Amino acid sequence: MDFKTELEARTERVDAILEKYLPEAEGPQKTVLEAMRYSVMSGGKRLRPILMHETYSLFGGRERVIEPFMAAIEMIHSYSLVHDDLPALDDDDYRRGRKSTHAAYGEAMGILAGDALLNLAFETVSSAFTIDQGPNTANAFSLFARKTGVFGMIGGQVVDVETEGKQISPDLMRFIHEKKTAALIEAAMMTGAVLAGASRMDITATGSIAHDVGLAFQIRDDILDVTGTTETLGKPAGSDEKNSKNTYVKYFGLEKAEKEVEILSERALADLSSLSYENPFLTELIKSLVYRNK
Amino acid sequence: MDFKTELEARTERVDAILEKYLPEAEGPQKTVLEAMRYSVMSGGKRLRPILMHETYSLFGGRERVIEPFMAAIEMIHSYSLVHDDLPALDDDDYRRGRKSTHAAYGEAMGILAGDALLNLAFETVSSAFTIDQGPNTANAFSLFARKTGVFGMIGGQVVDVETEGKQISPDLMRFIHEKKTAALIEAAMMTGAVLAGASRMDITATGSIAHDVGLAFQIRDDILDVTGTTETLGKPAGSDEKNSKNTYVKYFGLEKAEKEVEILSERALADLSSLSYENPFLTELIKSLVYRNK
Repeated sequence: MDFKTELEARTERVDAILEKYLPEAEGPQKTVLEAMRYSVMSGGKRLRPILMHETYSLFGGRERVIEPFMAAIEMIHSYSLVHDDLPALDDDDYRRGRKSTHAAYGEAMGILAGDALLNLAFETVSSAFTIDQGPNTANAFSLFARKTGVFGMIGGQVVDVETEGKQISPDLMRFIHEKKTAALIEAAMMTGAVLAGASRMDITATGSIAHDVGLAFQIRDDILDVTGTTETLGKPAGSDEKNSKNTYVKYFGLEKAEKEVEILSERALADLSSLSYENPFLTELIKSLVYRNK
Repeated sequence: MDFKTELEARTERVDAILEKYLPEAEGPQKTVLEAMRYSVMSGGKRLRPILMHETYSLFGGRERVIEPFMAAIEMIHSYSLVHDDLPALDDDDYRRGRKSTHAAYGEAMGILAGDALLNLAFETVSSAFTIDQGPNTANAFSLFARKTGVFGMIGGQVVDVETEGKQISPDLMRFIHEKKTAALIEAAMMTGAVLAGASRMDITATGSIAHDVGLAFQIRDDILDVTGTTETLGKPAGSDEKNSKNTYVKYFGLEKAEKEVEILSERALADLSSLSYENPFLTELIKSLVYRNK
């Protein structure tokens, strides 16, 4: 099978898992359940759950305990986009070529559907304990919650919003990118490693690979925001400039940003190949993320 | 010791536990950490963590595993108030006699501080597994997440917002009250029972008591919104009418609402006294909640 076909099969598997953990839109809460489904089942690339699963496989994981965590990380990713798009934040009415959640369901429902997805992510994680009550599940839960929270993804988001339009130090810009994007990639890959029972050293190495991949991925995103079109991106191009975002491209120019992506990507791939485990698909996937053109 | 002194001692204990689990406001995320502290350390009555702890004690619980859950439920309660107060929802600039979080820190920070508190609640729950890795902790986590989510508190909040200004059936109004308020009281008391290792039957009985207390508490709140003043409430009186909220008082009048509180309260207290365990302070506390005048 070629990479593209394998990737499609994995994306479909994630969609099936999400279907299982997302409640049906019925009952008095029908609207918010609909808005939650609208936000999650929106043709996302499912990179984070796939990265999680592939890292789990890399370290020999073969059980179903990974599934609730895969669903949970996509719910976290989805809610963060829903809240990001709100008028008080990035104020984006479009996402992936269609209306963003608050544009489709109203602002109040956007806020509450985001809250509901964030809460559902942890409700879903809690169901992992019915599959495996061992310490790996508890450790994965703890790591996952840390990386998604104020010392992880939310922390990056906050500083990003606070510093819009302000001149900031390269260190602070790096902090934003590391937290806003890399933290969730770290959550994905490290959760996979922890659940598979990887050694402490391998978990740390996984964190470092995920950090580099995440940062490269974000810089690539910033590059595409400048070089891409609304059509290829599925969202308005140039939105970073519109929102006066601090990006690598803005500070160092396109060329240096490209160079940084290359350095990070090569380091990540070298670290990955130095592990005593192998997953060729994971290697291909990481390459496709950091070298993507759109 | 009299009830008031005992209650004060317990409130202080909850504040100390919250201090332990709320991060210091420092580093690049200083502002959001400040906003989180501002939202939580605001002189709240800490009813939910106290109810949780007293139910835990009722069933013989004596360990520290209850503490992260006590902190977590107050964080959930706090974030729900922060998001409730947002312009797109109830649009309240005051809460407990001072500026609400978004009024003090801006709307974007209000949204993100709420998200961060919701996430921190579960991060805090995850730390309970370092104290007790037994099945009670996992079961408590699962129950807690369910009661705070779209089939619990958030579900009630959503339907409440959606039906503002609309004529709804008494059943739907009851649904809103049961979810919006009672679900979190159920989360508090049932988590306490589960962590203490109460029997299945006792956990169910606890849920039923909590349901009645929660519903009585909410109707009492609606009554006070009509009969109280901004000064005694610490927030604008008459806000239900302003927001066209559907309340027991609006549908059935003050007298019938009072009667309903009485029926629910008496049933809760009778059920509580029929358990094979006793906690006189818990009984007093429940009385004070449902019979309070302000």
